Amino acid sequence: MRIALDVMGGDDAPQPNIDGAIAALEADSDLEIAMVGDQPLIDSLIEKSGYSGDRMQVVPAEGVVGMAEKPTIAHRKKPNNSIAVCWRLMAQKEVDGVVSAGNTGAVVAAALWSKLFLKGIKRPGIAVTLPTLRGRSILMDVGANPAARPEHLYQYGVIGSVYSRRILGVSGPSIGLMNIGSEEGKGNDLYRETHTFLSNSPLKDIYVGNVEGRGLYRGEADVLICEGFVGNIVLKVSEGMVDYLFKSVGSALMEQLDTERHIAQRVFQEVAARHQYSEAGGAPLLGIDGICIICHGSSDARSIKNALGVAKSLNDHQLNKHIVEEMQKYSL
Amino acid sequence: MRIALDVMGGDDAPQPNIDGAIAALEADSDLEIAMVGDQPLIDSLIEKSGYSGDRMQVVPAEGVVGMAEKPTIAHRKKPNNSIAVCWRLMAQKEVDGVVSAGNTGAVVAAALWSKLFLKGIKRPGIAVTLPTLRGRSILMDVGANPAARPEHLYQYGVIGSVYSRRILGVSGPSIGLMNIGSEEGKGNDLYRETHTFLSNSPLKDIYVGNVEGRGLYRGEADVLICEGFVGNIVLKVSEGMVDYLFKSVGSALMEQLDTERHIAQRVFQEVAARHQYSEAGGAPLLGIDGICIICHGSSDARSIKNALGVAKSLNDHQLNKHIVEEMQKYSL
Repeated sequence: MRIALDVMGGDDAPQPNIDGAIAALEADSDLEIAMVGDQPLIDSLIEKSGYSGDRMQVVPAEGVVGMAEKPTIAHRKKPNNSIAVCWRLMAQKEVDGVVSAGNTGAVVAAALWSKLFLKGIKRPGIAVTLPTLRGRSILMDVGANPAARPEHLYQYGVIGSVYSRRILGVSGPSIGLMNIGSEEGKGNDLYRETHTFLSNSPLKDIYVGNVEGRGLYRGEADVLICEGFVGNIVLKVSEGMVDYLFKSVGSALMEQLDTERHIAQRVFQEVAARHQYSEAGGAPLLGIDGICIICHGSSDARSIKNALGVAKSLNDHQLNKHIVEEMQKYSL
Repeated sequence: MRIALDVMGGDDAPQPNIDGAIAALEADSDLEIAMVGDQPLIDSLIEKSGYSGDRMQVVPAEGVVGMAEKPTIAHRKKPNNSIAVCWRLMAQKEVDGVVSAGNTGAVVAAALWSKLFLKGIKRPGIAVTLPTLRGRSILMDVGANPAARPEHLYQYGVIGSVYSRRILGVSGPSIGLMNIGSEEGKGNDLYRETHTFLSNSPLKDIYVGNVEGRGLYRGEADVLICEGFVGNIVLKVSEGMVDYLFKSVGSALMEQLDTERHIAQRVFQEVAARHQYSEAGGAPLLGIDGICIICHGSSDARSIKNALGVAKSLNDHQLNKHIVEEMQKYSL
């Protein structure tokens, strides 16, 4: 598999991207990486790293989309920026996947312009895997589609259930609609329409209905669907809360424990790891004809290595083939 | 102060409401409670409780709005239900406040029909206080107004800042807009419009801009505003996450700690208490000419007692007088 890595994307780029790419190549001999960005800079960093293999090729790009830049304006001003070049490589079938820790909006905008959608898909969405009291659930979309329509959310249900089954190994995954109450008629227009839509759709047998915010971490559905605005806020509030609770409980605990402090530290580290982006690697943008992994802006070398590994794993599992099959089965 | 208590509202009603009311009366000699609901039932429970004071009067109501019932239909079918009677007492100035652990939608619907709004207020909203790394922040609205307009959110900023200053004692509270990114132009139409609206409004000097989900528990703003759909999901996801983390970290810790297990248990209890509804009592519906505290459906006697205490405290602080003054100062 060949992946285009946006070497310039991320808060601390390019160093963690170079280090992560080398670590990924060492871990997987089937991988090749197109290193996209400022050629002289990347050449010198690769030389400095001592990497001497032939599975890394530099592909030049001009400019970077800043983390706070408006995607549309940035793409227009810098048409050959590293994110745009990555997507062009995928459109030309020169790579099978794209990995970027750059401006998420710019990655999504490039995806929309590329029109590289799987057959039948109206709008791609970002899926994240969250730990719950019952295992792991998928939340989709968390930011690619902030003004979704019911048929988009329906497709996220189909895509998410394929992901849950094929990647997380859940048999017979259930689908829930994130909402402000479990009863019929809850929510705003979009959520009421989507609930009616799903209840009468080919998904109706695995659709468990509206799921309240509390139900997410209880694992009340294997796949929770929502539009990007709500999903993004849910994801980031969750991140903030993990951080808050670990800091507040953790500092009180470490202060008051004595001989058994090391045990508490280990437990905290283990649970924290489940919530760390560096372990998860990144979140896939699904519905794309190709693979796209969006990494956290603050990605370190370990996150980038893991994100490249996630891209490889989705490819190995032929996720897209299964999504296309399921989309046909559940076509409206 | 005289408060109408919806004795029939709540998952375990009426017993916790009777017990909570008696505890509140014992704690505060300035309080009187109108016990609204099924008269013979309430009479018998009060008699059984042994309460013999004269600061509790039963006001009959017919029927209860079920927790899963649609508010509009329930109010039409049962016009003298306990929630409706509570609000009628407030409209007739026979009580200064309403406390209910019943169907939240039905309480809000009764509030909207009563038109008991403070001068200048377009739509009331529910405010909750959340602990953060820097203290406490207000999140408003968490469910009263699922289809808000920019001018509603503007008013929540004004109301929330009064609450933050007068009740939480924050001097010079800041206001943030819950959004999916901190940069200008982020979010859907409502949030983009609201950002522009606030940036050019009389609140502009204390408006700190868009705040991401992560910023909530970091305490990046003293008052965070959003429409009810998003706020409700944020609140319930947070509740679910506290529960999930305490169960997952807690069980691993208790299993592995030995001699110092009791210390960890105490720390967990202390932090958990900060997130418990029974301690907070309930969330105020603000913007109402009167006081309304909405309690969790699962309220126990302690929550009801505390909710009555919160109502008393808002009255003692003359919160509404300050809101009206501030609304005039910040009128558009």
